[in-house]
Formats: sequence, structure tokens, C-alpha cells
Amino acid sequence: MSHIFEGAEKKLEIVIREGLSFFDWPEKNFIDLVDAAGTKILSKIENPQCRAYLLSESSLFVWSDRITMITCGQTTLVGAALKACEFLNVEDIDTLVYERKNEYFPQYQKTDFYEDIRRLNEKIQGKAYRFGDTDEHYMLIFHSNKPYKPHKDDTTLEILMYGLTGRSREIFNNPGFSATEIRERTGVDKIFPGFQVDDYSFSPIGYSLNAIRDSQYYTIHVTPQDESPYVSFETNLPSRSEVQKTLHAVLEVFRPKSFDLIFFDTRSTPERIEVPGYYRLSQVRQKVACGYAVRYGHFTEASLEEQGAIGIEIK
Amino acid sequence: MSHIFEGAEKKLEIVIREGLSFFDWPEKNFIDLVDAAGTKILSKIENPQCRAYLLSESSLFVWSDRITMITCGQTTLVGAALKACEFLNVEDIDTLVYERKNEYFPQYQKTDFYEDIRRLNEKIQGKAYRFGDTDEHYMLIFHSNKPYKPHKDDTTLEILMYGLTGRSREIFNNPGFSATEIRERTGVDKIFPGFQVDDYSFSPIGYSLNAIRDSQYYTIHVTPQDESPYVSFETNLPSRSEVQKTLHAVLEVFRPKSFDLIFFDTRSTPERIEVPGYYRLSQVRQKVACGYAVRYGHFTEASLEEQGAIGIEIK
Repeated sequence: MSHIFEGAEKKLEIVIREGLSFFDWPEKNFIDLVDAAGTKILSKIENPQCRAYLLSESSLFVWSDRITMITCGQTTLVGAALKACEFLNVEDIDTLVYERKNEYFPQYQKTDFYEDIRRLNEKIQGKAYRFGDTDEHYMLIFHSNKPYKPHKDDTTLEILMYGLTGRSREIFNNPGFSATEIRERTGVDKIFPGFQVDDYSFSPIGYSLNAIRDSQYYTIHVTPQDESPYVSFETNLPSRSEVQKTLHAVLEVFRPKSFDLIFFDTRSTPERIEVPGYYRLSQVRQKVACGYAVRYGHFTEASLEEQGAIGIEIK
Repeated sequence: MSHIFEGAEKKLEIVIREGLSFFDWPEKNFIDLVDAAGTKILSKIENPQCRAYLLSESSLFVWSDRITMITCGQTTLVGAALKACEFLNVEDIDTLVYERKNEYFPQYQKTDFYEDIRRLNEKIQGKAYRFGDTDEHYMLIFHSNKPYKPHKDDTTLEILMYGLTGRSREIFNNPGFSATEIRERTGVDKIFPGFQVDDYSFSPIGYSLNAIRDSQYYTIHVTPQDESPYVSFETNLPSRSEVQKTLHAVLEVFRPKSFDLIFFDTRSTPERIEVPGYYRLSQVRQKVACGYAVRYGHFTEASLEEQGAIGIEIK
């Protein structure tokens, strides 16, 4: 199964106390975090408020008060979390959130979530939750226990998409296209206007994009491999009112067969999300001790057509 | 994660050529098969046409011309398949089918399907298929290449159920009930009438049932654990016309949140199955070289209610 690539991601977010800044860290600290996760820095873009590293497996974003790191494949993001706890005094960490989506091929992962959080919990006391049933799509979250009050506009939207269909699939699956060609043909750089963009086309296929404007970011990672076609999109929204518009624009480009919607917000009673053309199979909402209301939903298209089975090469 | 139990099963079926009989095997051969899979025989019932072993992890059925073995947990059923190939001349095997459902916790399995079929293929040349997308429920099948013409009434129905709801969940989750109490309170012995029944209640929870009448069997395995509630039902149907009735009776007892339907048949154009109250999320049909038409479908209830997340103990 050397041909498989695990698209499903792990995510780490660390917020530090007022008065400290991640921009005071030497570059070497970020290189060490990335190393500890088993990935590499490919390139970097920045503006005065945000720095975005494109990694060999996903992305690292740095602001004065926080870092957000997303890694896919067989990376060990928990290593980066533990490394960050060495660079910081634990009492200076206002909040730490560590997430893992259920993986396509957990048997090829170096660690599992339960092991990860046991190690994390030794450094920084926390709680853990599962959003969704174990036989369906689900997300696992660990967060620090310390009370924290996020800024009221602190919202994150993650759209994790499975089974690309339509024209964009052909573009992403074509090993002949450069990053520029992929970007222009799919319009992934137009989801939000006026962003500085850094993207990369992997060999033979695979595509990553980081985009920043002031303190806002969005990032896209495409694993179009037939065995496990997957795309992730993530952004910190400029405002709650843009959820539906953003969701629509993203689904329009990728047309997934199914997707997860993960929403971190500060309000505990957000409205219910329905998406035309998709069944909502689950919706889980939980207010967590670190101050966020977290929502997770899985949506799927109806498969009305019968299909044939997929042949597996024996090797 | 020592508290988890993997309900999802592996299945092996071997049919031998006319003139040979599995009933000529010494008992020791069956003990060796069961050993090779890493499981144990708990009890046995039989009639002149069929013998049914209840195992510590599921079941083994023996007829003159075939064996069907189903194992769950962390068993290595591929070991039993390889052992059977030692006891038989490979040219005497008319057909061999090896199935694995996607597991809840593949990271705790001793082998994976891709590794299993590489080993099997060295003994008996075959083909392999995946039924369903890798991000959803799916089934993996390996079958021998040798042309084989199953008897026209050779049909198998598997109903794999996730997320028990309703009254039966409480009965199966109650460590205080004996097998007899579970059987009588849930009515699992009434799904088909007039069968000889052998069942077992595991400690602290878990329930298995084998039932035979002439050459017909049905078997039920219940893993009610909160982390991964799962029930499997399997039978060789007396006739195709009983599919809907059987499905209805089984769903009535277990009321799962979602289920897979797997159907082995000899006709390549079976009717489409729809189940009231459930969305059909996928349906895959494939005629395979060993003579069966195989159908796989996944069905799920709509989750209209929002839920809270499930707390995870860190240990």
C-alpha cells in the first residue's frame, strides 16, 4: 500500500498570553516544530500580521498571539505540540487545541489520538471529546482545561471534502499541470479576493495553497489520489455572516460526494446549517472548557446510481 | 484503548469439489483452523447436514461441500485460510472467498487486508475488489480465479448493523442477563422459526448465536460496547423471496442507526433494495469470476437531532 497517501489531517492551535509574541521566536523554533512533526518547510509568505509556511505535508500559520499548524500524511503533529511546550512556559499558554480527523488508513499512522493525548496531558492538562460515531466520520479533539475567553470574532471554518467529482477532479489529477495552471483553471485563488497566495503542485499529483490578507488566512490541501480523494479547506472567517457564502464557493469548486463541516465559534447557540443537495447525517455541538463552541457535521450526497466494485491490485 | 472491542468481521468461505466432504476431516483439523485464526471453540451443535461451532470470536459452519468461518476482534482469519490450504490440495478447492469489512480500529489489527491477500494469492490465485469508497463504509473481497458455478439457490445475506437503538440496546448492554434471558427478551431466536439454537453471553457484555435447521443457518454476533456498537447477522436464505421479510425482521429487533447489506447471489441482475426509514448511501454490484453476483449497500437513518460530543477518558 505504498501508493496510498493519507489526506486526513491533524491540527494544532496554541494561543499565548498577552505580552508575548510568536514573532519574537527565532526562525529555528518553527523549523524545529516542523521537524518534530516529520514534515518540511517548502516556502513562506508574510505580511505584518501573519506568516504562512507551506509544508511538505500541509501548513503552519503564525500570528503574534497564536500558531495554527495542520499536517497530513503520516506526520506526528503531537511531536510539534510537545516541542512547542518546551519552547514556552506552560503557564504562558492561554489555550491549546489538538484535533485529529478519523483517518482513511489508521493502520499506517505512527501514533493514534489516544496515545497522543496521553502524552499531551502530561505537559498540559486537558479534556478530550469525540464528535460523531466511531462507525462514521468523526473528529477527535483535545483541549487545555484553562479557562479562556476567545475574542468574539474568533471563528474558524473547516470544510473537509471526500470524493471529488466534476471538472476540478480532472485538473487536480493531471500530473501535467503546474501550480499556476491548477490555480487558474480551478479558481481556488478566487474563493476570497485580494489575498497573497503561495501554492505548490506535488509530484505526481497533489496541490497545496496558503493565502493571507492582513490577519485572515485560508488554506487548501488536495489529495486527489483515486484510493482516497480528499480536499481540506480552512479559514478564519472575517465574519459569521460569511459562512454560507464561503461554503457555497468552496463546494462549487470541489463538488465533493460528502464533506465534514467543523466550526469553532464563541457563541454557544449557532444556527443549524443545511446544505442544498446534501443530506446532513450528523451534527454534534459542544461547548468546551477553553471557551469555544465547536460544531461538527457530516453531509453526503445521495448515491442513486449503482456502481461497480473497484479492482485492487495484489502485490 | 484496552476497553475497545472490534466488532467488524472477517469472513472465509471454502467450497470443495464433488466427491470430497468436510465431514471426513478429523475434529483436530477444525481445531487447528480455529487456532490459526487466534480464536477458540466454545460449543457445537449439529444435524446430519450442518455443524455449527460457536467461537470465542464468532462462528464456524461446516457442511459436506463447504465451510464458512466468521471472526471478529483482533483475529487473524487469513491464518485459517492458509491452514485450510495445507489440509486440502489447492486443485480440490472449487472456490475460496475471503472478506474483510472496514474496521472501527484498524490500527489494532494484527494484519491488514492488503497483506492478507498477498499471502493468500501465493497459495491460490485470485482477484480482489473494494465495494464502496474508502472514506465511507466498505467491504474488501478476495476470491479465487477458478471458474465456478454456484447452485442457483446459493444465496447469502449479511446485515451488518451499527449503533443499536431502542429497547434491545438496553438488554444487550445489561451485564446481568444470561444468554437465555437475552434470547427470550429480544426474540433473536424467532427470526426464523424451528431452528436448533446455540448461544453464549460474554462477560461483561456481548452475545453470539448460531442457529441451524437442515442445511440452513443463521448467526448473530452482538458487540454492544458504547465505543463501537455493532451487530452482525448472516444467513443462507431458503429463497430469494425472503430477503425483504428477513431484513425487516432483523432491523425490527436491532433498530440500527445504519447498516450494510451484503448479498451473494447467482443472478447478475437482482432487484434494487430500498429500506423504508433509511437513506441508501451507496450500492455497489459486481459479478465476480467465481460465479457470484455480489451486492453491497450502506443505509443510514437521517440524524435530525443535534447531539453533544462524547467525552474521552485520558489514560
